[in-house]
Amino acid sequence: MPTPYDRLVTRLKHAHALGTVADLLGWDEQVNLPPDSADARAAQHAVMAETQHAAATAPEIGRLLSELERDSATLTADQLVTVRHARRDYDRATKLPTEFVAEKAAHSSHAYHAWADAKKHSDFAAYAPFLEKHLALARREAELLGWGDRPYDYAIDRHDPGLSAAQITALFTELKRGLVPLVRDIRASKVQAATNLFQGFPVESQRVFLREVTERLGFNYRRGRIDVSLHPFCSGTGADIRMTTRFDADNPLDSLFSSIHETGHGMYEQGLPLAHLGTALGQSVGMAVHESQSRLWENQVARSRVFWKFFEPKFRALFPAQLAAVSSDALYLAVNAVEPTLIRVDADEVHYNLHILLRFELEQKLFSGVLAVRDLPAAWNALCTELLGQTPANDREGVLQDVHWSSGGFGYFPSYCLGNMIAAQLWDTTRRTLSGLEDDFARGDFSRLLGWLRDQIHTHGRRYETMELVRRVTGAELSPNHLLAYLRERYGGLYLT
Amino acid sequence: MPTPYDRLVTRLKHAHALGTVADLLGWDEQVNLPPDSADARAAQHAVMAETQHAAATAPEIGRLLSELERDSATLTADQLVTVRHARRDYDRATKLPTEFVAEKAAHSSHAYHAWADAKKHSDFAAYAPFLEKHLALARREAELLGWGDRPYDYAIDRHDPGLSAAQITALFTELKRGLVPLVRDIRASKVQAATNLFQGFPVESQRVFLREVTERLGFNYRRGRIDVSLHPFCSGTGADIRMTTRFDADNPLDSLFSSIHETGHGMYEQGLPLAHLGTALGQSVGMAVHESQSRLWENQVARSRVFWKFFEPKFRALFPAQLAAVSSDALYLAVNAVEPTLIRVDADEVHYNLHILLRFELEQKLFSGVLAVRDLPAAWNALCTELLGQTPANDREGVLQDVHWSSGGFGYFPSYCLGNMIAAQLWDTTRRTLSGLEDDFARGDFSRLLGWLRDQIHTHGRRYETMELVRRVTGAELSPNHLLAYLRERYGGLYLT
Repeated sequence: MPTPYDRLVTRLKHAHALGTVADLLGWDEQVNLPPDSADARAAQHAVMAETQHAAATAPEIGRLLSELERDSATLTADQLVTVRHARRDYDRATKLPTEFVAEKAAHSSHAYHAWADAKKHSDFAAYAPFLEKHLALARREAELLGWGDRPYDYAIDRHDPGLSAAQITALFTELKRGLVPLVRDIRASKVQAATNLFQGFPVESQRVFLREVTERLGFNYRRGRIDVSLHPFCSGTGADIRMTTRFDADNPLDSLFSSIHETGHGMYEQGLPLAHLGTALGQSVGMAVHESQSRLWENQVARSRVFWKFFEPKFRALFPAQLAAVSSDALYLAVNAVEPTLIRVDADEVHYNLHILLRFELEQKLFSGVLAVRDLPAAWNALCTELLGQTPANDREGVLQDVHWSSGGFGYFPSYCLGNMIAAQLWDTTRRTLSGLEDDFARGDFSRLLGWLRDQIHTHGRRYETMELVRRVTGAELSPNHLLAYLRERYGGLYLT
Repeated sequence: MPTPYDRLVTRLKHAHALGTVADLLGWDEQVNLPPDSADARAAQHAVMAETQHAAATAPEIGRLLSELERDSATLTADQLVTVRHARRDYDRATKLPTEFVAEKAAHSSHAYHAWADAKKHSDFAAYAPFLEKHLALARREAELLGWGDRPYDYAIDRHDPGLSAAQITALFTELKRGLVPLVRDIRASKVQAATNLFQGFPVESQRVFLREVTERLGFNYRRGRIDVSLHPFCSGTGADIRMTTRFDADNPLDSLFSSIHETGHGMYEQGLPLAHLGTALGQSVGMAVHESQSRLWENQVARSRVFWKFFEPKFRALFPAQLAAVSSDALYLAVNAVEPTLIRVDADEVHYNLHILLRFELEQKLFSGVLAVRDLPAAWNALCTELLGQTPANDREGVLQDVHWSSGGFGYFPSYCLGNMIAAQLWDTTRRTLSGLEDDFARGDFSRLLGWLRDQIHTHGRRYETMELVRRVTGAELSPNHLLAYLRERYGGLYLT
């Protein structure tokens, strides 16, 4: 006879398996869907959403949770983690009236298309009512779930359980203080990375290089694959990870670094304990920690000298003619090019965080009511000018550039910057505690780093919340100083000598 | 307020959409699944099967059906078709106890692996108990559904509603009478197709040719695609068809003809009325008619002189060196090579039907109890020797060659041969009624044939059962004489002149 805990886990795994099927539909939509089959796919998504919702809100889960909470003294610490998160998820799934969920889903779909159109025509006014409604829905959702007094904190908590706007504000303020002068100094530097170094890199050879790099970093291709889509992403679970990339014959570094980024996400998922898949113990901590994994591999590792010491000969062997006139120094500078841009997704890692600071500040003002949606473009442009020293010529390259808000994805942007901070702090710890790590990299061996991340982070699933995890692993509170020191060291060394 | 009929259709479409998601999982498994992700996929299949079963057996469907059957006088002829088939499906889904369904599913999985092992080691005895249990389950299933006195007819009816073993026996007996002397004569012929004509056909160019051919035949790639898998198949619905093929640099015709075969299946599905997807009006008639569509395009069309008149220059343009020493006559003879083989899936269209006659006779004897499972290999070999003039050296190339029985797929084999008969009879009708059709083909225009099949067959969905459909479309009862005449004409012309 299975125990109530076992029965709960069976229910959770069942709902989770349905979710992984829905994820695969999403992956297939981006990678394989024939052009006129979108309606059929939408119908499939709809039935899966309904099915998932029914599974996640089954009254039996509520009964089992109540029983387990009553007898919580009999549960192990791990079991308590599962129950706590299952309760949170169950309440969030059941406390929202079906009509509200349907209204939000329908609005997200409409708002996405309105955003895509508005972006195309750089016409914010056409999109503004959709954004207003999304804000109203977000406030209403927070209220329904008991976060009525802190709707933006609720938005953050959805992606990074346990984090709050106040904590993030403190971190970002300190980061900004150090980042602004660093950016100013680098932008005043005479050193400039050459652009257009890369022309005519055949996709097939790019594919070979990308595969070698990501496999050597530690991605397990026996439980995953990489395909092509318009925008790179990583989906699936550790049992079957589906990453995507895109190729441009004249920009091999774009494909390479976005693939390494997705590989970082993929290796995190592959490191979560498979036996616990579907419960909090087999789930990532949140988006900030997820981003820390992708950024650590993409930036700290793959933009380092030692990484290129190992891979440059292989890169040149695949593209001997294309790289004949490119010196090693020029290649390394191109890998670490710093150049201001209005577009977040094109930003280098020095500027990137400023793009996030901007969005975080505006999201807070929208939620507090200090800023009206109609005034958002002007506020965006002013803050952009202040932080990035550039002013968007239109809303397409300003407030309309990101997809997130069009689906009501508020509170997500901070995770990117928090991820950068966590990555830098983890990196500091590994350099203190894993001696000779860079010698490993120079030999193409990344296994000690991956093993450490597995032990310290991946294996715990959602056992610890973000801040507690950082404290346990690094021995210190999360601080932007590690990120600042890392940026000063790497980019100062290149641009400020 | 939706009518009871509308509510029934909503339910049917919901269950159907879940089925299409499960199908996509199956497609992805054959095309994309990473090698170590099979367990995760099995778990996904299991939750989808459970979900589908719940949707197909929802008591609300039963209530709606009873209501509609009571008020059937108010329904249109089309609505009656939907209701009649929905009732049949609902009864089949609800009358089988859950434990029986679970037992059969579990046994199918075990039996599949037992079959694969047994085939590998050519060890029928190890597989015999699994086949025996499958027969017992099939009999029990027929009994539970009220077909206890005709279990083999039930097995046939599952794939081809309305057909019976007696009807098929009559057709096959007549076919055999004409086929055996034809095969004997061709095998005595001095004309022999050269084998090994084709070496070193690069896969990329094969892909280009295949795409051009299948697109020109009429496959709509805006609602479908073709990928690579170990065994070619066609899945999905007209809204999103997923075909597969395989490539061998030394056997371009294998890939080409199997792709044309799947294209025939795919175009049938694409021709079913999309608005009725999920009901009988948007569903194929059965496997025999489905096979008639794939065979018609593969054989009657793509092995014809006029087809090659158009495509041969394109084929040669893509493979000029490889085909330099191959004459047009040799190429055409290779396309229509007749050569006995013990393996059904490798058989040419003259011999193919004999392979089916063999299986149909043995299935009947197994179901009637005249033949015991333990005596099956000997019976297979004896009948094979009689019909094909060759004796398997072992069970791998004999009774263990096909996968069908390992999942309890009895009653399916006859559909292949019935499909060949229907294809030939349809072909006769088109030649009588669509004048100048072959001139179209010689110009690479296949639209009149496809349009005719759309009007005569595809658009009706499951409105008519197999025999009635054939009668309506061709003006005559289904008869093997059309197939015999076609084979005599095409192969007599090549081998008996």
